[in-house]
Amino acid sequence: MRMKAAVMYEPKKPLIVEEVQLDPPKANEVLVKLAATGVCHSDVHFYTGDLPAQMPMVPGHEGAGIVQEVGPGVTRVKAGDKVVLSFLPSCGQCRMCVEGRTNLCDLGAQLMAGVMLDQTPRLHSVRDGSPIRNFLFVSTWAEYTVVPDACLVKVRDETPLEKACLFGCGFTTGYGAVTNTIHIRPGESITIVGCGGLGLSAIQGAAASDAGMIVAVDVHEEKLALAKKMGATHVVQNRHNVDEVVKEVLHLTQGLGTDYSGEFVGFDQTPETADIAFRSVRKGGTMLLVGVGALSQQTLKVSPFVLTMYEKRIQGVLFGSARFRTDIPRYVELLLAGKLNLDEMITNQFRLEDINTCIANVLAGNKVGRQVIRFS
Amino acid sequence: MRMKAAVMYEPKKPLIVEEVQLDPPKANEVLVKLAATGVCHSDVHFYTGDLPAQMPMVPGHEGAGIVQEVGPGVTRVKAGDKVVLSFLPSCGQCRMCVEGRTNLCDLGAQLMAGVMLDQTPRLHSVRDGSPIRNFLFVSTWAEYTVVPDACLVKVRDETPLEKACLFGCGFTTGYGAVTNTIHIRPGESITIVGCGGLGLSAIQGAAASDAGMIVAVDVHEEKLALAKKMGATHVVQNRHNVDEVVKEVLHLTQGLGTDYSGEFVGFDQTPETADIAFRSVRKGGTMLLVGVGALSQQTLKVSPFVLTMYEKRIQGVLFGSARFRTDIPRYVELLLAGKLNLDEMITNQFRLEDINTCIANVLAGNKVGRQVIRFS
Repeated sequence: MRMKAAVMYEPKKPLIVEEVQLDPPKANEVLVKLAATGVCHSDVHFYTGDLPAQMPMVPGHEGAGIVQEVGPGVTRVKAGDKVVLSFLPSCGQCRMCVEGRTNLCDLGAQLMAGVMLDQTPRLHSVRDGSPIRNFLFVSTWAEYTVVPDACLVKVRDETPLEKACLFGCGFTTGYGAVTNTIHIRPGESITIVGCGGLGLSAIQGAAASDAGMIVAVDVHEEKLALAKKMGATHVVQNRHNVDEVVKEVLHLTQGLGTDYSGEFVGFDQTPETADIAFRSVRKGGTMLLVGVGALSQQTLKVSPFVLTMYEKRIQGVLFGSARFRTDIPRYVELLLAGKLNLDEMITNQFRLEDINTCIANVLAGNKVGRQVIRFS
Repeated sequence: MRMKAAVMYEPKKPLIVEEVQLDPPKANEVLVKLAATGVCHSDVHFYTGDLPAQMPMVPGHEGAGIVQEVGPGVTRVKAGDKVVLSFLPSCGQCRMCVEGRTNLCDLGAQLMAGVMLDQTPRLHSVRDGSPIRNFLFVSTWAEYTVVPDACLVKVRDETPLEKACLFGCGFTTGYGAVTNTIHIRPGESITIVGCGGLGLSAIQGAAASDAGMIVAVDVHEEKLALAKKMGATHVVQNRHNVDEVVKEVLHLTQGLGTDYSGEFVGFDQTPETADIAFRSVRKGGTMLLVGVGALSQQTLKVSPFVLTMYEKRIQGVLFGSARFRTDIPRYVELLLAGKLNLDEMITNQFRLEDINTCIANVLAGNKVGRQVIRFS
């Protein structure tokens, strides 16, 4: 079939929204008509060239839609089902899946291959039939997508897909970091560095878990105001002075630091934002490293002496340690029950044709919230 | 009383073994006649000036001996009891102690104060009565010491103190990292970087836990031979080439990496030795940072991108997460049952007068094993 997709031909060049060819689903694959997709900052790393990818490709990895057709062997979904996509596959059979760490499924090794699990492409140029790479198996910046059935989960018919698409990456990463990875207990304290999509989701997770002190840190006052709305009990403005921020957190905790902390900055991540989280956590505490940003090309800037002497822990977090097959339907229930605040996280809704505007917004800094593209 | 002690007057100058004045124990303090003390590489950091300390002071923090006298309020030990000292206090009352993380006891905040818990010194110059600083509350490079009762544990009369002194730091740090901090399960795999006192103790802990693959990494062939004796199933020589070592570990594990890894190098620690441990651990695995060495003045050199994308964990380890009041008597039982190999770890026995030779041996590199000073 032919459909419209946003194609990235090379880093730093505007994407071209054009018709491309999409092959039908093969065995264990599903054709999905997208209802909505988020513009995650991780996508933009490939636009800027911070992270490498083979091109041309169709980016986008935060999607939700409706099943159109299933390939042979697919039993969990059928045409008409609403689904949320997961950019991380879960095969259910490998050691990691079996141990309940499905976000680390062995199939993830092929994440950047740009082709389906059988090593062939589904996307092609309408001009010459040459292959177009997929992105993280899902390529959601398109009207339709073919994905492995390891990369989606059925959700209730009532699910508002234009919100639930965020469960495919950003929301789940932040909320899951607090509720899965560390499973914070009522009354425990946490410092959340960065109040974009990840951080605001993390704050919601902490508040839902009845955490005690929830200290939100961000550069922007508007983000801190939003953080308070989402449940932060204290806010500290980061004026690009690590010592000052850390001093404030220590002051709030009688010099101890919070039980947990997390670096949720994402795109604008620096060694300094990670260091704020590291130094804000108490002895014996756990610091989460959640965002993937500019720091991905650098090294951590934390003191190994402090790490050892205070027996601190630095925990990497991928997709909020999600078991997406059970987590995403659970988030849908919370959403339908009015217990999640996605409306105030999603500040902008766009059409696919606006994709370059969305990217420019990300690059212009953190003035916007989560951007969602709706198809209809 | 007057007694002989090794006094450090300034960094990089030979210690002077001379008579000093030791005050009697005050409330909640205990006078101990030392039977043996280890020469831990951590002591040498203060000799080299890598770590700061106020001087003059009497170093040494790995000691065992016999109680001579107790101050008011001491109920757990009496004169004649054999005891092992712990350089980390445990008050039993603070949040960390109550949570079972006694190695993080709040009294540890005063560790480097150089005076007792009541802020006064017990050591003085015989010349003018001026105070001499204690080291980590225990100052074991001396014939006698006065320590808080929060810093010792009674052990069985049969305990060979010239071996059990290592339970006061080095052995417990390595063995505890594997058996407490991560509590490795039978069949799980671990890479142990550094086969000095810490690493060899860790290998014994892994072997006692029936770990599957135990990969020992060191620069020196002799250390690797010793590692095999202690239970390492595989050895990899580190020829100062991180990539080469990591490649070998990955080869041994079908490309996955081991379930756990630890950096146990201690004195000769570098960003590279930490990176070997980081890169040798599998996705979702835990890397322990155990040694305190030259890296204490630097920053970690690990990839935050890998940390996040593979959801790895870096766990600092202080004193093997020991609850020394129960761990050390347990180690004594293992020792008496012939289940610990300390004899081959202790390669040299000295007298207190030889202290500068011991330090020179540490600085000359890893040609010696654990050095123990015996008093008698």
